Amino acid sequence: MSGGHEPFVDEVDLKARLKAARIMHEKFSPLIKAVLDGKPPKLVIPKRTLANTVFDPERGILSLGEEVLEREFLDLGESRRFMQTLLMAAIIYQSLIENEYPTIRDLYYKGKHTIVYRDMRGRRREENTWDEQKESDSVIQDVEVYTGLFREDMLILSKEKGKVVGNMRIRSGGDVIDLSKLGHGAYAIESTADLIEILDVDAEFVLVVEKDAVFQQLHRAGFWRRYKSILITGSGQPDRATRRFVRRLHDEHGLPVYVITDSDPYGWYIYFVYKVGSINLSYESERLATPKARFLGVQMSDVFGYGSKKPYLSEAERKKFIIKATDRDIKRAKELLKNYPWIYKNRLWKREIELFLKRKVKLEIEAIASKGIRFFAFKYIPEKIETGDWIE
Amino acid sequence: MSGGHEPFVDEVDLKARLKAARIMHEKFSPLIKAVLDGKPPKLVIPKRTLANTVFDPERGILSLGEEVLEREFLDLGESRRFMQTLLMAAIIYQSLIENEYPTIRDLYYKGKHTIVYRDMRGRRREENTWDEQKESDSVIQDVEVYTGLFREDMLILSKEKGKVVGNMRIRSGGDVIDLSKLGHGAYAIESTADLIEILDVDAEFVLVVEKDAVFQQLHRAGFWRRYKSILITGSGQPDRATRRFVRRLHDEHGLPVYVITDSDPYGWYIYFVYKVGSINLSYESERLATPKARFLGVQMSDVFGYGSKKPYLSEAERKKFIIKATDRDIKRAKELLKNYPWIYKNRLWKREIELFLKRKVKLEIEAIASKGIRFFAFKYIPEKIETGDWIE
Repeated sequence: MSGGHEPFVDEVDLKARLKAARIMHEKFSPLIKAVLDGKPPKLVIPKRTLANTVFDPERGILSLGEEVLEREFLDLGESRRFMQTLLMAAIIYQSLIENEYPTIRDLYYKGKHTIVYRDMRGRRREENTWDEQKESDSVIQDVEVYTGLFREDMLILSKEKGKVVGNMRIRSGGDVIDLSKLGHGAYAIESTADLIEILDVDAEFVLVVEKDAVFQQLHRAGFWRRYKSILITGSGQPDRATRRFVRRLHDEHGLPVYVITDSDPYGWYIYFVYKVGSINLSYESERLATPKARFLGVQMSDVFGYGSKKPYLSEAERKKFIIKATDRDIKRAKELLKNYPWIYKNRLWKREIELFLKRKVKLEIEAIASKGIRFFAFKYIPEKIETGDWIE
Repeated sequence: MSGGHEPFVDEVDLKARLKAARIMHEKFSPLIKAVLDGKPPKLVIPKRTLANTVFDPERGILSLGEEVLEREFLDLGESRRFMQTLLMAAIIYQSLIENEYPTIRDLYYKGKHTIVYRDMRGRRREENTWDEQKESDSVIQDVEVYTGLFREDMLILSKEKGKVVGNMRIRSGGDVIDLSKLGHGAYAIESTADLIEILDVDAEFVLVVEKDAVFQQLHRAGFWRRYKSILITGSGQPDRATRRFVRRLHDEHGLPVYVITDSDPYGWYIYFVYKVGSINLSYESERLATPKARFLGVQMSDVFGYGSKKPYLSEAERKKFIIKATDRDIKRAKELLKNYPWIYKNRLWKREIELFLKRKVKLEIEAIASKGIRFFAFKYIPEKIETGDWIE
């Protein structure tokens, strides 16, 4: 087994590396200048707290507010986190210029070590740079908001589970890939969704389904061929690459995005992550959220009807398919209705969740799908899209 | 949005459907004959119990023994399960001839209903066909062992998370897919791995990595290009399609299979699932297990050295990377060593686990990977393959 020890160098990746390294250099060099000028080095970082997370109703996304925190090296309460941030930045910078593709777990290991020092009284002390990956992940997030770079921009990889098929061609790693020629398989989306070049898209909408098995079913039955569309799954709670890919299809190609999840608080939350972003990581939403994403179903009104809308399920089917909501579901639904303005200010969402709280039942996508692929793929979905039967 | 209501019909799928429908017809029609002949219908099914699970040392896999159970309709203790089996078989048969692609969850819903009847005293009674998916899944397994068909042979889909890249071409759903032209993404393997036609393979071995992020890292660095190989991940505990795909590459193309997991009981178990099969579903091993799969690492001897073998980690790295084993890890390791002949009869496995029990520490793949891609991809892995440093 021969060959050198150099990793394969991709031109797109190289360009991204150089850009990220340059930005990091710009952002961190003032600290060195401060030290040389005899001033205390300090970092000014946007606050990632819940209190500094705001919902922008105009753009329809969560984002960070104006608040910043100052992290000074010479402040005993802040010096640990200051040093952690610089340690992480140094490791990431090193990885960038050395053509490495670290995972977030790698970065945890790379930086993990014990610092031995003597305190003011001369006693020997030990301190770990960090103990848990939770801690180093949070430091990566600090580096992200401080530099304005996403970890993917810095060629940091993480576990991904998004899949896509449909009438479109992309370029990735020098290859042109036709996403309509993948048989019964699919394209597994890589971490760096922004480095994918979308060459052309011949589709009228994007359909995102929560569950992988349902994705496979629709794919296999030829849904995206019949209704010119891009079919995507994030396999449950979507990762960043899947969300970014969906957002790009919407932004760059003007495609409406429809989401299908279970009809329960967990399913709704998955839809809201696509639409608004994750509450705890609001700085991501800027690039990951698709505010105009539409919740196609499964809606409570699909199950019970509403006004002039007839239900898709007969009385007998309803009896067979619905599941009693748990106390936790009820609690979750009440929280959604109480805490989030994009829900309680939205008439249709309010109605949907109130209907859930009244009936105290939920329904899975598979209950609809089990009525047969003819019904699910070729009646339920297209009819709802055609008649505008979604919630925004 | 126009178009008919018929699903896309794939020729390979159609052929598979007809074959499965024919076998189901053959297997179940004797029951009808029995009824017409005035005899009590009964099913004779191989027992799926642990007691009837045997390890075949010659072939190196788990399989079902000779024991069978008889399930009679006219036996009060067996009639419920008898009826469940026939109900499930009928639903699957119907799905086959109607070009449906049900998921296992769909089958649960399709069959779920309440039977109302009067008992011998004329009282009205109700009974559900099944309550939980666990129950219907178990019935699907009965249909599998009774017919000798896998659920995938019957075009039943399920969630899949396997990915593959490398120098090979396949045909799936009428498309020819070059798995070396997928950029930084990968081919997401579909449920029906047996319906994939492997056209050609230009590789010297298969490398299976437990974790998706590590898979992406090796892929990105060009590992499979440098060392002509097929790179696969099952993202943790592998699903059936991933295992079948690995097995086919070994069987049909004679490729050695190397597996890399964490160095802990959970990682070993993942390796054993690829190699021997799952203990609870031993009938699958016949087609899913790859008995000759080799455990490349991470090995305890990579960490601590052994005999003349030098460790890959320095004293300082070891201190930094190793994690204390939990009580659960220890318990698990002892069980592995005690219960499974393919472990306790294997000198090297015995040594590996005993070393673990002595040191009481574990190590993740990422600890090795965090030493840099040059080390991990271009030294550690190829050197171990070249020197035969694996456990079989």
